[in-house]
Amino acid sequence: MTSNTALPASLPPSAVIREVGLRDGLQILQRVVPTATKLEWIRDAYAAGQREMEIGSFVPARLMPQLADTAEVLAFAKTLPGLVASVLVPNLKGAERAIAEEAHSMLVPLSASHEHSLANLRKTPDEVVAEIGRIRAARDAAGSRTKLEVGLSTAFGCTIQGQVDEDEVVRLVQAVLDAGVDAVGLADTVGYADPQQVSRLFTKVLKVAGDRLQCAHFHDTRGLGLANCFAALQLGIRKFDACLGGIGGCPHAPGASGNVATEDLAYMLASMGVESGQDFGALIALRGKLSRWLEGEQLHGTLWRAGLPRTMKQEEVAA
Amino acid sequence: MTSNTALPASLPPSAVIREVGLRDGLQILQRVVPTATKLEWIRDAYAAGQREMEIGSFVPARLMPQLADTAEVLAFAKTLPGLVASVLVPNLKGAERAIAEEAHSMLVPLSASHEHSLANLRKTPDEVVAEIGRIRAARDAAGSRTKLEVGLSTAFGCTIQGQVDEDEVVRLVQAVLDAGVDAVGLADTVGYADPQQVSRLFTKVLKVAGDRLQCAHFHDTRGLGLANCFAALQLGIRKFDACLGGIGGCPHAPGASGNVATEDLAYMLASMGVESGQDFGALIALRGKLSRWLEGEQLHGTLWRAGLPRTMKQEEVAA
Repeated sequence: MTSNTALPASLPPSAVIREVGLRDGLQILQRVVPTATKLEWIRDAYAAGQREMEIGSFVPARLMPQLADTAEVLAFAKTLPGLVASVLVPNLKGAERAIAEEAHSMLVPLSASHEHSLANLRKTPDEVVAEIGRIRAARDAAGSRTKLEVGLSTAFGCTIQGQVDEDEVVRLVQAVLDAGVDAVGLADTVGYADPQQVSRLFTKVLKVAGDRLQCAHFHDTRGLGLANCFAALQLGIRKFDACLGGIGGCPHAPGASGNVATEDLAYMLASMGVESGQDFGALIALRGKLSRWLEGEQLHGTLWRAGLPRTMKQEEVAA
Repeated sequence: MTSNTALPASLPPSAVIREVGLRDGLQILQRVVPTATKLEWIRDAYAAGQREMEIGSFVPARLMPQLADTAEVLAFAKTLPGLVASVLVPNLKGAERAIAEEAHSMLVPLSASHEHSLANLRKTPDEVVAEIGRIRAARDAAGSRTKLEVGLSTAFGCTIQGQVDEDEVVRLVQAVLDAGVDAVGLADTVGYADPQQVSRLFTKVLKVAGDRLQCAHFHDTRGLGLANCFAALQLGIRKFDACLGGIGGCPHAPGASGNVATEDLAYMLASMGVESGQDFGALIALRGKLSRWLEGEQLHGTLWRAGLPRTMKQEEVAA
């Protein structure tokens, strides 16, 4: 029997769940959710305790009409005290809009898979790194305080290329750190990661990025999303992307689960004593609204059906 | 940021998935699955690589007509070379049948929750420990080679009692070890466990049981089943109960996921390089049969829908 006396590792006392449903969740849908509905989602999520949200993307409206109202949604999000509102920007043009609209944070995706990068952006990863350098220069020249984050997408594998070399992920992280980004995250864009791989790759990237490695983004395509979050949490990672109702599925796996479900992740964290400030009743009520707003779409997750265990119900705990 | 240089821990090179669908999965259903269907399940699961199965329970047929054919099913399972066939026995009477029928292994459930034990068996946990002592004596007196295992049920919490004291779990493990059982396991009967709790409780029990702590039994009621398996695996645990299609739900959470899904657990293990000898194509085909056999019941799991990642498909890996 393998023994490891260092376990159980102490987990961080708190963690942030960044709600990315309004971007990663909605962008894959064929429908356009009305702006008023998005504002209600943000208002309710805020009331439920969520304090970071990726609310849209500055991409051409003709490419992604679902997110065409990003500026308006961002303006609303910024009225909520203490809410960190981030947007995804694929290039300098998008970044210029994020800077002009004073987003709190802008996230640039950088595919670790060469083939995915070419297919998605018609640029090599190193061309994207160069673009990130230009984004940083533009941000600094504007005297902007918008935080610049890079998400290493397909960091755990790629539906086009297959394997993604871990050394290539580390090299690209180093390159964007050299380009002066404020933070990096690792994303399992297509649901290939397993918890041991998460332990291994986060450990490697922590060595070069330290505290600038901030976020983990996992999809639950093959049921490992929460196990992967746990593995990252064991290494001290304290920010996780998630989508209410587990929306945001992968186009390569129709019907499969999408991002880690916000409410299930919040439950796992609370169950382990990791504070994330979420009100479960409010989250589940919002999930009910979401299922009506997205009628016909498949939502995922388990907590909405199973409910909290008796040991975690407020009235029981107080008794 | 918390750092733990001991991670990633090395995982065991291999692990056993014990299929418990024929017992834990079927016992909760209102229907009786024909014996011939059970034999086909066992035959196909064996062909898919499964080498341990809990195939039924020696309980009075009037209490559990679903499992009334356990002796016949056991006799068939024993004809398959290398298959370890276990049965659940709630008391001495059941154990006497398991011994007479020469089951390879018999598992006695022992509730760590006092209230659950009373509600379920009308015995206190210590009365069950005494019964386990009588079972061991009967087994030895018969010169039987049937392995005696105890599963500590409700070890992570109880829908009736709520919290279950970890020291009480450890005390009961020590008591059954003193009674001479061959192996113990920890079971999250009602889906309350989280991975940090798994790390903590398994660490405590390993200290008293060592290699005699063999099996982990998790339900996926709130989506944490695989994360819990990963946490146990990190401590060197090498045997996991699971049900094909994630059947075996908890009566206290209607519609919720049941046991960890065999096929998803097999995928997680393979993805991490932990050998469990499963043929995914055969498992998914058998899951398809199961969904027809149990028409109207909700099956769970993710792999059947998402498929293997490109990095794990045989033809891709070979290319």
